[in-house]
Amino acid sequence: MSKAVILLSGGLDSTTVLSIAKSKGFECYALSFDYGQKQLSELISAKIIAENFGVTEHRIMRVCLDDIGGSALTDPTLEVPKFNQNNEIPITYVPARNTIFLSFALAWAEVLDAQSIFIGVNALDYSGYPDCRPEYIKAYETMANLATKQSVEGKKIQIHTPLINLTKAEIIKQGLTLGVDYSITTTCYQANDRGEACGICDACVLRRQGFEKAGVSDPTHYQ
Amino acid sequence: MSKAVILLSGGLDSTTVLSIAKSKGFECYALSFDYGQKQLSELISAKIIAENFGVTEHRIMRVCLDDIGGSALTDPTLEVPKFNQNNEIPITYVPARNTIFLSFALAWAEVLDAQSIFIGVNALDYSGYPDCRPEYIKAYETMANLATKQSVEGKKIQIHTPLINLTKAEIIKQGLTLGVDYSITTTCYQANDRGEACGICDACVLRRQGFEKAGVSDPTHYQ
Repeated sequence: MSKAVILLSGGLDSTTVLSIAKSKGFECYALSFDYGQKQLSELISAKIIAENFGVTEHRIMRVCLDDIGGSALTDPTLEVPKFNQNNEIPITYVPARNTIFLSFALAWAEVLDAQSIFIGVNALDYSGYPDCRPEYIKAYETMANLATKQSVEGKKIQIHTPLINLTKAEIIKQGLTLGVDYSITTTCYQANDRGEACGICDACVLRRQGFEKAGVSDPTHYQ
Repeated sequence: MSKAVILLSGGLDSTTVLSIAKSKGFECYALSFDYGQKQLSELISAKIIAENFGVTEHRIMRVCLDDIGGSALTDPTLEVPKFNQNNEIPITYVPARNTIFLSFALAWAEVLDAQSIFIGVNALDYSGYPDCRPEYIKAYETMANLATKQSVEGKKIQIHTPLINLTKAEIIKQGLTLGVDYSITTTCYQANDRGEACGICDACVLRRQGFEKAGVSDPTHYQ
């Protein structure tokens, strides 16, 4: 059984990714981050999801992105905006977040002697974050294969992005066939302590539209 | 004045890099890490060095590389080996360390609106760590220029590695001409609480040989 590190936020996408990695037969090590995000209910979701899927280990690492700031997800003085379909990158973008998360995954993968990292980036129904695009992931993988002792020893690391070219509706359909219970996932940027979603942020609207387009009822708990 | 983030461990190389960045006229933001390294005296050095050079800001960030393990620098059960000139990567290698450090620097640079990151990697008198080689740095820079909102806006980030092709003796000579006081730097992998060096680890021996080859007296405080 090959080992894989799965970046698990506790949201819809990363939970689907975990279900895909399991279905492909990987031994899964889930990695979540307490990075100073305003809402911590996604981490409670991540814990439940990791248990439900029987991962070998689930780690929640603290990284101080709130000290760095620059995002409405970590800075209490910046409000999370309502859904907006313009082409600008919204202030919910967190500087270098996926680069930092993938780098911790890379370190853990090396210690585990794993050659696979799974991340739920998506470049269709998304907020335009640069670190979700295929060209970024490709460049990260190239760098990762020069970065480690593993890579010098000829063990190639692969960044798996099974959702990258799927619509939100396709992601949901795939997850449902793999038995994902989306009612326990937390996608909202500003969910309350009970994990209830605001229904108006980018993440909420993209998720709700996904359920509508997939033709299945939306199990999200709204405020 | 252009801003730059300088990765500052408190050792000989990164201190020289800081002196070079200052001499080039950059406004310097120094970034150090409490990453679970066994010896913390290098962070005390970093603090003094940052003050001496009058950096605009010095941050010491906590990152839990000790939780990830896999290195004699962070794992109390692994002994730091004596200097060894074989071609193997020693167990003082820390999985994905430079990738993680550069990624935090990238995030901070973006928030500061800085387009320069300085790192004191060196691929001549070094321990063979993969994440010190030119091809790794080049790949990191390519990735970084796809990762951020800054990059999408056409602001190119540059990873400066002014020491990469210098011998340790050349690094020391350059630092001395720029006024570096090497007596306050801590290079040793297992310095004691007073910052005194063991004299026998890779880092100590490469440093001592550097002073010898440079023909200057070694100001290091040994145990």
